[in-house]
Amino acid sequence: MNIGLREAEAFLKNCDNVYILIHQSPDGDCIGAGFALNDILRSMGKKSAVLCCDNFSKKFDFITDVENNTDFTPDTIISVDVADTKLLGKYQEIYGDKIQLCIDHHISNTGYAEKTLLDAKASAACELLYRLVRFMGIEISDYTAQCLYTGIATDTGCFRFENAGAETHEAVADIMRNHKLNYAKINREMFDIKSVGMLKMESAVINVMEYYLDGKVTMICITNELLESLGVDVSDLDGCASLPLKVEGVEVGITIREKAPDSYKISMRSTGDVNVSEICRTLGGGGHVKASGCAMDGNIEDIKKILVEAVRKGMEL
Amino acid sequence: MNIGLREAEAFLKNCDNVYILIHQSPDGDCIGAGFALNDILRSMGKKSAVLCCDNFSKKFDFITDVENNTDFTPDTIISVDVADTKLLGKYQEIYGDKIQLCIDHHISNTGYAEKTLLDAKASAACELLYRLVRFMGIEISDYTAQCLYTGIATDTGCFRFENAGAETHEAVADIMRNHKLNYAKINREMFDIKSVGMLKMESAVINVMEYYLDGKVTMICITNELLESLGVDVSDLDGCASLPLKVEGVEVGITIREKAPDSYKISMRSTGDVNVSEICRTLGGGGHVKASGCAMDGNIEDIKKILVEAVRKGMEL
Repeated sequence: MNIGLREAEAFLKNCDNVYILIHQSPDGDCIGAGFALNDILRSMGKKSAVLCCDNFSKKFDFITDVENNTDFTPDTIISVDVADTKLLGKYQEIYGDKIQLCIDHHISNTGYAEKTLLDAKASAACELLYRLVRFMGIEISDYTAQCLYTGIATDTGCFRFENAGAETHEAVADIMRNHKLNYAKINREMFDIKSVGMLKMESAVINVMEYYLDGKVTMICITNELLESLGVDVSDLDGCASLPLKVEGVEVGITIREKAPDSYKISMRSTGDVNVSEICRTLGGGGHVKASGCAMDGNIEDIKKILVEAVRKGMEL
Repeated sequence: MNIGLREAEAFLKNCDNVYILIHQSPDGDCIGAGFALNDILRSMGKKSAVLCCDNFSKKFDFITDVENNTDFTPDTIISVDVADTKLLGKYQEIYGDKIQLCIDHHISNTGYAEKTLLDAKASAACELLYRLVRFMGIEISDYTAQCLYTGIATDTGCFRFENAGAETHEAVADIMRNHKLNYAKINREMFDIKSVGMLKMESAVINVMEYYLDGKVTMICITNELLESLGVDVSDLDGCASLPLKVEGVEVGITIREKAPDSYKISMRSTGDVNVSEICRTLGGGGHVKASGCAMDGNIEDIKKILVEAVRKGMEL
């Protein structure tokens, strides 16, 4: 059942002994929202803890380095930024059908919780949580403000994306007016800093990038041999998928990733003018207009030719 | 003489036949502010044009592709985002001592104009200009709104830097509430898109990066041989200066640029904990705490050793 801010407020006031669940492969938004809610509940005199099936990246230490004792029996299960219980990993089986409140901003939310506070127009779960906090009229700490800022900044690509509209900037202005935030440092950690492995990977990806159809299509092929030669691991691939689309004049960026000998996973991204969902459908895959994919087996050079031809046809439409 | 918003308003209402001067190597803020003011003055029924000693990058076409006929005798000279008349290039000699109004946000403004509207706390000249527009209560076009957004976004690194505080987000929220802005597209053009040359340069820079003092210092050496081997030109170096500081754990990033055989220009950047101004002073240079430089002649390997040793000493302080 979808609920509004008033009901969410009543729920938080009446709950206690809370487990806050966030999604697997945790990002800035679910970590920010989870730990912000944790801090808010504690300031209301409740016992609470954050549960995640995966570890947190070191760059979130400034949020996650708080006492987080989960050693109690929960009376209340709340999820934040979790669109589907599948995203709870090992906690799906234990808590998937016991979630009393979900606070989320994904339009794809499956409505698994007893009560859902959903705003698909919010840029981030953190933005929605901030609106709830303002509605409740409660004071938040500078720590919570940092958590909320981090979630909004990361989910909007530091205010770069479509979802960073007037309401988002308004919320951030409001947070900044009332709290001491080290936002320049947060943004540096979130958006600038890269590991040596990631830099090596980026450099290698640029070097193997191929250009087709008058530079309108870029293609990178990441083989296991390449990964081994660089001595980097798969986590260093993060961010490389967006590289092909960053090249001037490019409309479609293709990333080919070797899964096994002669077996490849293809991801196709578009700046928006070309519908890559249609193109991938002709290759047995699918997805969104701007981000789709498919799987292909065979000789890599043949696969490249098939891909370029499929994109050429897709561009004519 | 420093003036306030009221006087600036009176000036704009009474002026006509305006040349708007912006600084050399024009960036998003001076282009945005210059063309925004141009559009505002025209909507007030005045004749005006923007003058810049350098060409505009193609990525600013959506701002600069307007009729801009400079073929009239100006009665009024206004500069925007110009801290010093030295930055006017060839226009310094002609107009340097004739500037009646300057609108700027640089604390280093030399006060060269008859009247100066200065706010060093504004993130961008565009933010200050927007405040003036609101003060005047005039309607601006969506085009002008895009110009102002672009200046604010570029001068704050898309809201990443220290200067993007509450007032900046507030101004942007206000612009967005009242205007149709294609901000996601603008941000893509400003912050994501790179030329093939820039990507090649980045890749090469990562490959030649050296690590010293337990990875706390990174060094890149850009020789003329490297530039030639890549077939890229100096403009592709843009952005590479910030790469050394993006590596995890780095405190000081050093870029060495070959000027002539055995002659090098050194730029040193710090994340803030180490004072590179002090370090460069010991090498005959200087600058700011976080960004300084010096010139060094000699064998490149000797220079590297001297640099590392100077930084090691500087870190002990």
